[in-house]
Amino acid sequence: MIFSSLDGIDIGEFIICTYSLETEASSNIYPIAREIAIGMTTGTWVPVPQETEEIRRKHVGRVVGVYETPNFEREIPPEIGKRYFIVQIAIPCVNFSPQITMLLSTVAGNDITVTYRVKLLDIRFPEGFAKAFRGPKFGIAGIREVLGVGQRPLILNMIKPCVGIDPSVGAQLFYEAALGGVDIVKDDEVLANTSYSPIVDRVKAFMAKERQAFEETGEHTLYAVNITDEVDRLKENAYRVMEAGGNCLMVNYLSTGVSALRMLAEDTAIKIPILVHFCLASSFSGSPNSGISAPLLLGKLSRLAGGDLVVYPAPYGKFLFLQESYLRVAHLLRAPFYHIKSAFPAPAGGVHAGNLSPIIRDLGYDCIIGVGGGIHGHKMGATAGAKSVRQAIDAFMSNIPLEEAAKKDKELAVAMESWGFRE
Amino acid sequence: MIFSSLDGIDIGEFIICTYSLETEASSNIYPIAREIAIGMTTGTWVPVPQETEEIRRKHVGRVVGVYETPNFEREIPPEIGKRYFIVQIAIPCVNFSPQITMLLSTVAGNDITVTYRVKLLDIRFPEGFAKAFRGPKFGIAGIREVLGVGQRPLILNMIKPCVGIDPSVGAQLFYEAALGGVDIVKDDEVLANTSYSPIVDRVKAFMAKERQAFEETGEHTLYAVNITDEVDRLKENAYRVMEAGGNCLMVNYLSTGVSALRMLAEDTAIKIPILVHFCLASSFSGSPNSGISAPLLLGKLSRLAGGDLVVYPAPYGKFLFLQESYLRVAHLLRAPFYHIKSAFPAPAGGVHAGNLSPIIRDLGYDCIIGVGGGIHGHKMGATAGAKSVRQAIDAFMSNIPLEEAAKKDKELAVAMESWGFRE
Repeated sequence: MIFSSLDGIDIGEFIICTYSLETEASSNIYPIAREIAIGMTTGTWVPVPQETEEIRRKHVGRVVGVYETPNFEREIPPEIGKRYFIVQIAIPCVNFSPQITMLLSTVAGNDITVTYRVKLLDIRFPEGFAKAFRGPKFGIAGIREVLGVGQRPLILNMIKPCVGIDPSVGAQLFYEAALGGVDIVKDDEVLANTSYSPIVDRVKAFMAKERQAFEETGEHTLYAVNITDEVDRLKENAYRVMEAGGNCLMVNYLSTGVSALRMLAEDTAIKIPILVHFCLASSFSGSPNSGISAPLLLGKLSRLAGGDLVVYPAPYGKFLFLQESYLRVAHLLRAPFYHIKSAFPAPAGGVHAGNLSPIIRDLGYDCIIGVGGGIHGHKMGATAGAKSVRQAIDAFMSNIPLEEAAKKDKELAVAMESWGFRE
Repeated sequence: MIFSSLDGIDIGEFIICTYSLETEASSNIYPIAREIAIGMTTGTWVPVPQETEEIRRKHVGRVVGVYETPNFEREIPPEIGKRYFIVQIAIPCVNFSPQITMLLSTVAGNDITVTYRVKLLDIRFPEGFAKAFRGPKFGIAGIREVLGVGQRPLILNMIKPCVGIDPSVGAQLFYEAALGGVDIVKDDEVLANTSYSPIVDRVKAFMAKERQAFEETGEHTLYAVNITDEVDRLKENAYRVMEAGGNCLMVNYLSTGVSALRMLAEDTAIKIPILVHFCLASSFSGSPNSGISAPLLLGKLSRLAGGDLVVYPAPYGKFLFLQESYLRVAHLLRAPFYHIKSAFPAPAGGVHAGNLSPIIRDLGYDCIIGVGGGIHGHKMGATAGAKSVRQAIDAFMSNIPLEEAAKKDKELAVAMESWGFRE
């Protein structure tokens, strides 16, 4: 019964987990796969009397796939030291209620993850499980509606410097970026509610500038204020931000725990979008044979838990982050997922007007281009920096090469001159 | 100013973080160390106008140590491909309030962790930061007082099978273990509040058996009921457990987020000890060049956030967990740490009566021996299994070799026969 297949189980009653598994060439895969399935559910290292047939029938994990790559079938070449498998384990939904914490405990935290070299790559949720989650309140369509922006990539700006500036200085930077055509401004992930810059003061100062910029440009700007805090203060922070007129929240959802994001997203009193930041993701995903893969963490769990906009590493700048992972995060944020709305992928890190074309080419229009230093470090100032980014996007959408566009767009030309460019 | 030393800063105003860093042999360490210090605090990849001298003076990170091992000074041997450093960065406390979430965001989650091969190994907290935390309510002395047990290692038993049994079956297993002399019984980390076994029902059923066992043995037993749940239900779960007469809580503190543990531990309405489980730790610690080391996570942050008893991998069984890490977790749980009480290390996994002596030899009496299958899988039943563990501990404390003790202690002899032994 423990060995089955995807056809052999009622797929509505199981959570299907896909793992990468590394073994010694000399070890035997089936006893290992069996131990994983049992270890995540009913069993321990020794048979115990109460682990009855009835309990196993209802609660034990099923090994539904064991695939080796390269796929040895005739012999194991003598020079092979390790073998690499993709193993799929089906976990009965009855083992825990539809929630993030016991999901992670069972499929990514159990003893098995300390016993074998396993990394969790994907989870397929049955509809009954997913139904318990509301997902993003706004999603891509909702954010476009709030901003009144149709089919084009949005621009996200991170205030720089990251910490140390007081709300009025930040508000001025916000204003300059907004004037230049930025759609969303966010705090840095290392700045939250501090003594020298309380979130309520920031929201008041920034939102005053938002109204001022709107009067001048006719375009709205979201300010994603970082409310990250100990979990028992998060809701209170969100309420205070809304009272102060805030129009967007930001949370470092892996530092708070994914469950805290769900708490915020499913609180009906919170009526503004939530931007989530990938901060701490490399702790989970940095190893090839332990932890949780970035696409699952940033592309699926963030969305299931209710993130509207997901900021994560762009692969063309400074980051140790493969292009494949970056693409897969975006796929998972926007692929059909029951009733759960799609969320905006917002790759960021070392992005400026000169190197954003590959991102739009990769992801299409339903993405957000995250630019920090490429706006606030622009030689002509932040408004010009923001304009350079809008100009680069407009050029891309009109099929005009950057070099061509730079002839008339001074701000773009200066950015390309400072930091180079890629068509 | 960015390059300083531990003598060169006011150590009361900075959090000192120690990282392992891997670089290419061809790269230059000082610009990298500088970028780490700036990246975690004020800066980005390009200079921005508002990053003033004043801001840097107050908010920028300081490189206070750069140590290479092996320590090249005359030349880099041509065959060296990578170099390995220990880098210490001091982060100004003013950058965030004393809290777990922004601490993790800043020192373990920032962009830098995706830019370089860094792993966070340790954090030195200044007293002013630590003061904001209450730490464990009970700690080692408090747990000993609650149980009325003096100087000997305590015994922790995990109910097996892990999931699927109803509260009455679990209560019977609890009773059998308690009769045999177990001090604490815990749920498995994959069992929390479920439809077939609600926590309130478990607590009622188990605590009835606790009273019954106490009448027979005169010894009390803690039942650590696993209240892990979405974070907004944790406090409610704890209150319901206390109303039902529960005497101990358990939480998978990395699945909920460390901050959620602090929320529970610092709630004065919660008046019973908290056992925390290492579940999900391998996601953070599995990689040698990313993430957070297990001693810091399981030995220091768990204690700072208020865990009274910390269950973590024993190195002598099935786990991929080095003995060094296991020892260091125990050191950190019990070393002086300002006003924060010491917490009980509870190594577990594949432990039975025959192989617990090395653990006591390693850790001394202030530890908890975690035994699951070694009790419930004992051939003579769980009471005998628990007795075998008590007998092995008693033998160790009386300086009697196990082989000698087994001549009079039948239960111990049977355990050693089934699973072997190590003196």
